[in-house]
Amino acid sequence: MTEIRGGGAAAVHLRRGQAVRLVNTHGTQVVDTWCLAADDTSEYLSVEHTRRMLGRLFPRQGDGLYSNRRNILLRIEFDSSDCRHDMLVACCDRWLYAFYGCPPGHANCHDNFIEALAQHGVRPKHVPSPVNLWMNVPVADNERIELLAPESKPGDAVLLRAVVDCYVIFSACPMDITPVNGEDRTPRPVHYEIVDQIESA
Amino acid sequence: MTEIRGGGAAAVHLRRGQAVRLVNTHGTQVVDTWCLAADDTSEYLSVEHTRRMLGRLFPRQGDGLYSNRRNILLRIEFDSSDCRHDMLVACCDRWLYAFYGCPPGHANCHDNFIEALAQHGVRPKHVPSPVNLWMNVPVADNERIELLAPESKPGDAVLLRAVVDCYVIFSACPMDITPVNGEDRTPRPVHYEIVDQIESA
Repeated sequence: MTEIRGGGAAAVHLRRGQAVRLVNTHGTQVVDTWCLAADDTSEYLSVEHTRRMLGRLFPRQGDGLYSNRRNILLRIEFDSSDCRHDMLVACCDRWLYAFYGCPPGHANCHDNFIEALAQHGVRPKHVPSPVNLWMNVPVADNERIELLAPESKPGDAVLLRAVVDCYVIFSACPMDITPVNGEDRTPRPVHYEIVDQIESA
Repeated sequence: MTEIRGGGAAAVHLRRGQAVRLVNTHGTQVVDTWCLAADDTSEYLSVEHTRRMLGRLFPRQGDGLYSNRRNILLRIEFDSSDCRHDMLVACCDRWLYAFYGCPPGHANCHDNFIEALAQHGVRPKHVPSPVNLWMNVPVADNERIELLAPESKPGDAVLLRAVVDCYVIFSACPMDITPVNGEDRTPRPVHYEIVDQIESA
């Protein structure tokens, strides 16, 4: 499998019907995940459309992930983790680390997204709000949200099936201020592989 | 006050310190609301950043509304309604009405946003997810969402104060399929005025 170092990113091109398996190798790593339609990269996985179409705040195994044109781009074909995947909070960015008082230059998912797509010659018009795989942001009292350490386990895996030709972008979140990547606040590597055949999960 | 017809839209330019008062004249109308920084319209009110910075799914009187660069663009200085304002679901668009089987050409908030800004010579790069004023999308069991008829009352008003020079865009949502604009599913006019002086609400 291919490694994404903790704090790093990768973009993969999937043909319709292909899938990508992403493994949370150490179990503590949040992976911000985006998808753009390959034929027209202004069509993107939109969490605000996905929530509306699912009628839920969190996606589950079997769910389609919808675009800003109400098309399903990806399907969560398998999810071993049985834990929340956040679709509520923006990815980390240079402005968040500035807010926390970090010096300039902290790695961040916003820039990771742009740089990973640049490797494919794709220049997105904006940075959509991602699906934050394994990120533990529960809702309390049907209103409050809190950023907690992950509940995922080492080796937890998600299989995302491409419903259209697309780019899938993963950022192994560099966050080391809040406990979203574990109480020790240490980003760790994750691994992925492209899967061509339909699987029985 | 200036009327926005049911299903219509308007964009206003506010100088820093100015405010706009929006009145839900009939009490049943959802108003999708966006804000762009005037100096650089790639900085926009981002509900995913606002949720993260507030730690809540719904904004209240006194809250700042944050941009994709973690700056406060607007403040909800006054809110008479004491009801939810949705920040979870995408605005309606041509693809949603197609999903519902409507013929092409149904008015929608997505196109309203673009057309209202075009009046000011502004061409946004994408359509952000808006704050849906008075839209009643409660969360149940900390996970499920449902689109319900509004709980607002005739004459309910919101005062939005500009923290920076900006454009505020209002779309009196044309939705006539779901009950978000009332059980009779009928979009109705709302009214707004620009307020120059600091007010004691």
